[in-house]
Amino acid sequence: MVKTAIPLAASAQIEVLEFGRGHTKMRMPFKPNRNHVGTMYAGALFTLAEIPGGAVLMSAFDMQTFFPTLAKINTTFIAPAKTDVTVTLDMTEEELERIENEATETGKSVFILELDLKDENGVVVAKTVGHY
Amino acid sequence: MVKTAIPLAASAQIEVLEFGRGHTKMRMPFKPNRNHVGTMYAGALFTLAEIPGGAVLMSAFDMQTFFPTLAKINTTFIAPAKTDVTVTLDMTEEELERIENEATETGKSVFILELDLKDENGVVVAKTVGHY
Repeated sequence: MVKTAIPLAASAQIEVLEFGRGHTKMRMPFKPNRNHVGTMYAGALFTLAEIPGGAVLMSAFDMQTFFPTLAKINTTFIAPAKTDVTVTLDMTEEELERIENEATETGKSVFILELDLKDENGVVVAKTVGHY
Repeated sequence: MVKTAIPLAASAQIEVLEFGRGHTKMRMPFKPNRNHVGTMYAGALFTLAEIPGGAVLMSAFDMQTFFPTLAKINTTFIAPAKTDVTVTLDMTEEELERIENEATETGKSVFILELDLKDENGVVVAKTVGHY
């Protein structure tokens, strides 16, 4: 489970399957994240999409100096999820270097993360575009 | 607190302050919804924005016949929230009638809900536009 100081994310019981510089894969279990109609709750899917960005930045940058801020996130719900859901985030070395250089030189760097949330059958249940 | 069959929304401890046909006001407490940097967690704000839409539709429509579906929600984070946060949703009688008529006649009705999330000082901390 994600060790987190965010109680709501802890409630979602997100599990880190893979984690390295610029890369993470996370899974969220269905049961604690269901809604009243027996599919995965929209707020849970949002949370699963929101967590990897911060985690991957922690993999690459010194969090004493870099402060990632989420400005905007657009979430599109494509299909109801009735299983555990996973998300994979990959940032290239070039992208990480661009962000580090821009943030160091100008004090700020804008970047966009696009994620697909998939159910156990590989079906994309939601897509998010986050502006950081 | 919202009586809910959605565990994650229950964790957020959202409280219904006002509820009537086409209208609701809800409050989310700061403490269980904080993040690791001492502001309100983005996923919590999303949840507070997502819950009123379904609740207000329940105030106006028979949920045996009408099935609200969230297609897309765009969330813009404007300022960090460090207090409880409230949201107010009002749908006009005309809008409720339009939705009911369209859904009855065509089996479907598209509508958009725009919400402002405010902290205790009235500052808008986030805005959402939901497509249902």
